[in-house]
Amino acid sequence: MTANNSLNARGETPATPWVPADGPVSDADVATIDLWWRTANYMSVGQIYLKDNPLLRETLTRDHVKPRLVGHWGTTPGLTFIYAHLNRAIARRLQPTMYIIGPGHGGPGLVAASFLDGTYTSTYNSISNDEAGLKRLFTQFSFPGGIPSHVAPETPGSIHEGGELGYALSHAYGAAFDNPDLLVAAVVGDGEAETGPLATSWHSNKFIDPATDGVVLPILHLNGYKIANPTVLARIPEEELVALMTGYGHKPYVFTAGFDDEDHLSIHRRFATMLDEALDEIARIKAEAATNPDMDRPAWPMIVMRTPKGWTCPPEIDGKRTENSWRAHQVPLASARDTDAHLKVLEGWLQSYRPEELFDEAGAPRPEVTALTPPGDLRMSATPHANGGLLLRDLVLPDFREYGVDVPTPGATIAEATRVLGGWLEAVMAANLDNFRVFAPDELASNRIQAVLDVTDKSWNNGLDSDDEHLGKRGQVVEMLSEHQCQGWLEGYLLTGRHGLFTSYEAFIHIVDSMFNQHAKWLKVSRELPWRRPIGSLNYLLSSHVWRQDHNGFSHQDPGFIDHVVNKKAEVVRVYLPPDANTLLSVYDHCLRSRDYVNVVVAGKQPQASWLTMDEAIDHCTRGAGIWEFASNVPAGEEPDVVLAACGDVPTLEVLAAIDILRQELPDLKVRMVNVVDLMRLQPEEEHPHGMSDREFDQLFTTDKPIIFAYHGYPWLIHRLTYRRNGHANLHVRGYIEEGTTTTPFDMAMLNKMDRFFLVRKVIERVPGLASRAALLSQKLEDQRMAARRYARATGEDPVEIRDWTWPDARGLADAGAVSATAATGGDNE
Amino acid sequence: MTANNSLNARGETPATPWVPADGPVSDADVATIDLWWRTANYMSVGQIYLKDNPLLRETLTRDHVKPRLVGHWGTTPGLTFIYAHLNRAIARRLQPTMYIIGPGHGGPGLVAASFLDGTYTSTYNSISNDEAGLKRLFTQFSFPGGIPSHVAPETPGSIHEGGELGYALSHAYGAAFDNPDLLVAAVVGDGEAETGPLATSWHSNKFIDPATDGVVLPILHLNGYKIANPTVLARIPEEELVALMTGYGHKPYVFTAGFDDEDHLSIHRRFATMLDEALDEIARIKAEAATNPDMDRPAWPMIVMRTPKGWTCPPEIDGKRTENSWRAHQVPLASARDTDAHLKVLEGWLQSYRPEELFDEAGAPRPEVTALTPPGDLRMSATPHANGGLLLRDLVLPDFREYGVDVPTPGATIAEATRVLGGWLEAVMAANLDNFRVFAPDELASNRIQAVLDVTDKSWNNGLDSDDEHLGKRGQVVEMLSEHQCQGWLEGYLLTGRHGLFTSYEAFIHIVDSMFNQHAKWLKVSRELPWRRPIGSLNYLLSSHVWRQDHNGFSHQDPGFIDHVVNKKAEVVRVYLPPDANTLLSVYDHCLRSRDYVNVVVAGKQPQASWLTMDEAIDHCTRGAGIWEFASNVPAGEEPDVVLAACGDVPTLEVLAAIDILRQELPDLKVRMVNVVDLMRLQPEEEHPHGMSDREFDQLFTTDKPIIFAYHGYPWLIHRLTYRRNGHANLHVRGYIEEGTTTTPFDMAMLNKMDRFFLVRKVIERVPGLASRAALLSQKLEDQRMAARRYARATGEDPVEIRDWTWPDARGLADAGAVSATAATGGDNE
Repeated sequence: MTANNSLNARGETPATPWVPADGPVSDADVATIDLWWRTANYMSVGQIYLKDNPLLRETLTRDHVKPRLVGHWGTTPGLTFIYAHLNRAIARRLQPTMYIIGPGHGGPGLVAASFLDGTYTSTYNSISNDEAGLKRLFTQFSFPGGIPSHVAPETPGSIHEGGELGYALSHAYGAAFDNPDLLVAAVVGDGEAETGPLATSWHSNKFIDPATDGVVLPILHLNGYKIANPTVLARIPEEELVALMTGYGHKPYVFTAGFDDEDHLSIHRRFATMLDEALDEIARIKAEAATNPDMDRPAWPMIVMRTPKGWTCPPEIDGKRTENSWRAHQVPLASARDTDAHLKVLEGWLQSYRPEELFDEAGAPRPEVTALTPPGDLRMSATPHANGGLLLRDLVLPDFREYGVDVPTPGATIAEATRVLGGWLEAVMAANLDNFRVFAPDELASNRIQAVLDVTDKSWNNGLDSDDEHLGKRGQVVEMLSEHQCQGWLEGYLLTGRHGLFTSYEAFIHIVDSMFNQHAKWLKVSRELPWRRPIGSLNYLLSSHVWRQDHNGFSHQDPGFIDHVVNKKAEVVRVYLPPDANTLLSVYDHCLRSRDYVNVVVAGKQPQASWLTMDEAIDHCTRGAGIWEFASNVPAGEEPDVVLAACGDVPTLEVLAAIDILRQELPDLKVRMVNVVDLMRLQPEEEHPHGMSDREFDQLFTTDKPIIFAYHGYPWLIHRLTYRRNGHANLHVRGYIEEGTTTTPFDMAMLNKMDRFFLVRKVIERVPGLASRAALLSQKLEDQRMAARRYARATGEDPVEIRDWTWPDARGLADAGAVSATAATGGDNE
Repeated sequence: MTANNSLNARGETPATPWVPADGPVSDADVATIDLWWRTANYMSVGQIYLKDNPLLRETLTRDHVKPRLVGHWGTTPGLTFIYAHLNRAIARRLQPTMYIIGPGHGGPGLVAASFLDGTYTSTYNSISNDEAGLKRLFTQFSFPGGIPSHVAPETPGSIHEGGELGYALSHAYGAAFDNPDLLVAAVVGDGEAETGPLATSWHSNKFIDPATDGVVLPILHLNGYKIANPTVLARIPEEELVALMTGYGHKPYVFTAGFDDEDHLSIHRRFATMLDEALDEIARIKAEAATNPDMDRPAWPMIVMRTPKGWTCPPEIDGKRTENSWRAHQVPLASARDTDAHLKVLEGWLQSYRPEELFDEAGAPRPEVTALTPPGDLRMSATPHANGGLLLRDLVLPDFREYGVDVPTPGATIAEATRVLGGWLEAVMAANLDNFRVFAPDELASNRIQAVLDVTDKSWNNGLDSDDEHLGKRGQVVEMLSEHQCQGWLEGYLLTGRHGLFTSYEAFIHIVDSMFNQHAKWLKVSRELPWRRPIGSLNYLLSSHVWRQDHNGFSHQDPGFIDHVVNKKAEVVRVYLPPDANTLLSVYDHCLRSRDYVNVVVAGKQPQASWLTMDEAIDHCTRGAGIWEFASNVPAGEEPDVVLAACGDVPTLEVLAAIDILRQELPDLKVRMVNVVDLMRLQPEEEHPHGMSDREFDQLFTTDKPIIFAYHGYPWLIHRLTYRRNGHANLHVRGYIEEGTTTTPFDMAMLNKMDRFFLVRKVIERVPGLASRAALLSQKLEDQRMAARRYARATGEDPVEIRDWTWPDARGLADAGAVSATAATGGDNE
């Protein structure tokens, strides 16, 4: 049903994918592969060491060698070897293919490959296809003002930096989802294979529909060594390795080369033949999938490629084994410039590739080197899938206003915000079934957006039971109990030009802190590259948040992901804390329309009062922060005695309840209520694009009146965002202070001193002249707090007047039964 | 060589471990196991639902049921089943054993078990061994003011909360290291098994020495479902599952029960027999290891236990399958109190365990229930290993002062700080070979503390190659390319009463942000429990830091772990940024002596000038922050015109270089230099135990003079720590602002505007009256910056006057060759 071969989308004639080989590997192909491989390896060594004399047309001198030698050789020849062979397979089969490189520190190999494809020159004109271009290409590598040493956003054909190891397969599968014609060849380094995220990502094959998704071909590159140690998988007995891959659901093809004196042409022939077998097996599976919807999950091919680390570098340097050793990991000849002897070793190494056979007079690669380069967009360095913005189609977004809750008066409607969002997401899903996915670590239903399952299944190709619900081979919801997998899949999906969101428990999104870092860095650099088109934003929906861990308690309480996120570049990150259902809808519509951001949305899933009508919600979210008139007893233009501010759903509830107490107890006190939805509004305008001007800030918060600010997360973040503001000296923030347990909602607020009684006491303390007048009130409030705590500890529940509190204007309505619970509670698993 | 059976340490007669079974499973044992299991299950259901009538001696009424039903039933009966069988094995073999529960949400089962062991009552006297105690035990579960729903620090016998899933096996192996007599039975939930950290932690068996380490027995509990989905491993074909476990290096024992009408006694007999086989196989391996140092890595037994989720709960509720369904995950009868029909279901469920057979008149468990409870410390809930402080021996710490570098004058000695630390760590390691370990994700040598390998190996039981260095079956350094494994192992090692450190690249320590959260929360709660003894601190050594990513660039730059850490409870976290080698030694000695903290130490590995003599370093680190007189040209008691402050090694270098410029260009300007080693000193004293008083802060930083602060990390953290200080309005902070690439050291500082020239320009801008006088200077400095950038971009190197800059007093010495590089550089892999 989704023949959305991306080549079609660009108006080009699509290649026919999944064609079997038309015969054995020819001698000519083998020769071309070897020429190409030698060229790419020569160019990789050149990038690491040389700043001049790129074709060795003069005797190598120290001046030709870079003064600071940085980069990584060890993994590179393996990466170029695979590239060479994939080129042949693509050229022969016209198979759309992308290449994901787990060991991204092999950057020089991929730069060389894209130069040989012609893509590098067309992307960066100054790197011309001649000796001068080659010199610039060599010099710029890992050089100040040049390019990074890794497979970075700057590298054409890449969506995966591989600087932080572990995500090659999750990115690859993310790219393969809903791309039925796409082959994703993914190299897994044997160091990377030791990481947790990689170790579980092999299981991604249980979430692939052979008919409607693409195919990932994992290539486990066992080169034996990490920085300074052997690798686990290179040293386990081969029968254990084969069992492991079989256990992961794969059919392993094992290849070993480079450890003896076997001729390179023979090696190439063996690998090309084996790769043909693996691709033919894939073709067979795809053909069966096209006609047999009931086929069992296939054992997809994977390749184990065992070659020496640093393959083709000098076997020994200074009497120490270098090729096939951890010593080849980085720069095997760090002293190349220091001694004549070492300079000779480098020259000999470069000459071993016989550059005179590889480049023509002008310094361009000879045509026989690139004879197997695939045409046009089939070149892996030119695939539009790796510049996802080229393929991005806008989501068809139904009008979210039709999915909101009716709020006749503030507080009169009870709703579970995420469940309301789920209703709209169902419609979004229905309208975008081939380019929108939702990822969750077994928390979709717990976070209450499971309405999407009414229009799509959860993808599951791992056996069915009669009691199963909403599972199917094809499904746009993907659930696995691994935040790493959810994040990696979504990143791969977005980077290849689609849309999606990731919903998680707030506390455990920290599991992907480091992955978020890498994605934010990727976006930051991509925005600076004019040829990289904007991609869909990475949208988080964090629920089951810190204030409502009734089932799970302290271990599930952590609002610090926001703190983590705001350290990244301001142009990339956005943080929203909608206080109710309608604001959540408005915020999320905005997020799904945006590009190149990371949007963090924290929202409640528990039944809670709604405060704003849909129109009010839209206005409020558009402003990002504003005065709530209904809760203020002083006109907007007039100075209040105190500002009560809230950011987050529970803080908003407690602030409103505090204002209710103030109205009863201190009716003359002029109170302004400010709500913040878009946290970045608090920053200075020069720090963040959403930041408000000092004038706006002063108008909202005053410059001299006490501000009592109830915040969802760690309180000091508010100080960090506002310390330059005029009113900052008057700001008192309450938030989460790592006090928590499995308890009632209100007891939790009390534990952290963010409850209504405490907030009112802070008002009394801070408003000048009030303290003496209200000493008795303050005592009464503290008594009420203690009574509420005693009640909770005696009964297990919050006092009914607290649990059922709502805004005064809604109380009559509530009594008349107009407070509508939009859904039953308690039955949801968490 | 380490017969440090912990029972010995407590002066008790040790049990004889690793004894094979003395015969088949008896009928009496089977009957006892079943009685115990029924009791533990009854008590688990009771904890989730009941607040009264604990023995059902009256008809159950709604008032007996808790008003808010929270907790998790689904995993619990499996956990109690295993506990019952382990009890028998321990009682029969007198095998020291601890129990790690991956699915920690099965808390009620473990509380019940420790009550049946008698441990709960001896730990918490009010939970008496009678009906009144049982009522209190039931009521307190997951109740305000009571105990958490998970296996928490409050649970006797636990070191693993299991709230965040994924670390059961890494904790188990951490406990097993250097505990040769200890069996660690570790339950892995099938949901947990999908996480990345768990998926790689199976490979821990390659790092175990059968002779000198304990044994981990993994029990993969396949109960089929997560919160709302089937699990991956429960649904793959059994041959794939067996292949997977075989591939992980295990010998799987597969057990299935509960899906048909097999009698429970028969089930118990089968499991007990199989457990005996597995333990006998372990005994055989241990016996061989004791006599054969050359034995190959054994295939350690592991158990696959396939039982229904929520086993023994009602098969159906309201016509929906409940037992053996995801519906049993949490509270299967959430409506127990709502309808009479559901109340009857609950009562029938409780009665199905026949409580009258389980408890005596007084309400204590009958003696026949606990007939197989092991004696004394052999009870899993009473093992001292799970209260590691009981076993903790102080480290023997050699005098670090003897390992420092000689600093005749500030800047006159070049040293690589972490390499100097490594010299001392070698001596620490030599003196503590059975209770000190260093963990690293393949970064030990890269971070340059590899001197420890001169006295111990890296543990490696996975085959050797002739070229291997420092690998051995037994080794106190453990390297695997998984930060999750390093963190989990170290946590397990510390929680069982030993010492250690974890060295990582600074950027990638974010990979364990979430694990750090859980450990910090564990420590916070443990400190509040008087029966939990203090344990060794969790010590990080973060190097290859943000400012020196010459090889790797932007993806490897992130100093935000500090920001993450300081959100946790102040009494638990400490952060140090020693500026040179001697201060690093002093700081680390302090860390290794401390208890119950998380100590984060960020230190450089590159050659850099040393500033302080050892005595000065000790004084400075004792104060945590102070004035550096040698770099100030105004006496401490006198007011300066400007304060230049630094925290971190590169910031210190740049600040000193800036002061050098100021001395030349503006010799009349009165400059004070402040260095901060202990970051928490900046916080108010009421916020952190290390926080300095306002008076101290004012004395260091003044209240009204400009402060130019160069900080290692994100600059806003300094504002967040100091916003309440008097001088805060005058504070200008420079730090890392997400600008970076693979570049030269000084270019990196310039990219982030933390370089000497920029700092001086800030001084000119901020000191009143200086701007006009120094406009020309400011322009000259900017010209120097630009020239340095141009130079780097042309040559790949920093200008020599910048690269080789050192403090004026040291220049003559440097010229005379007295600047000593302590080690060659460039050859280290990174």
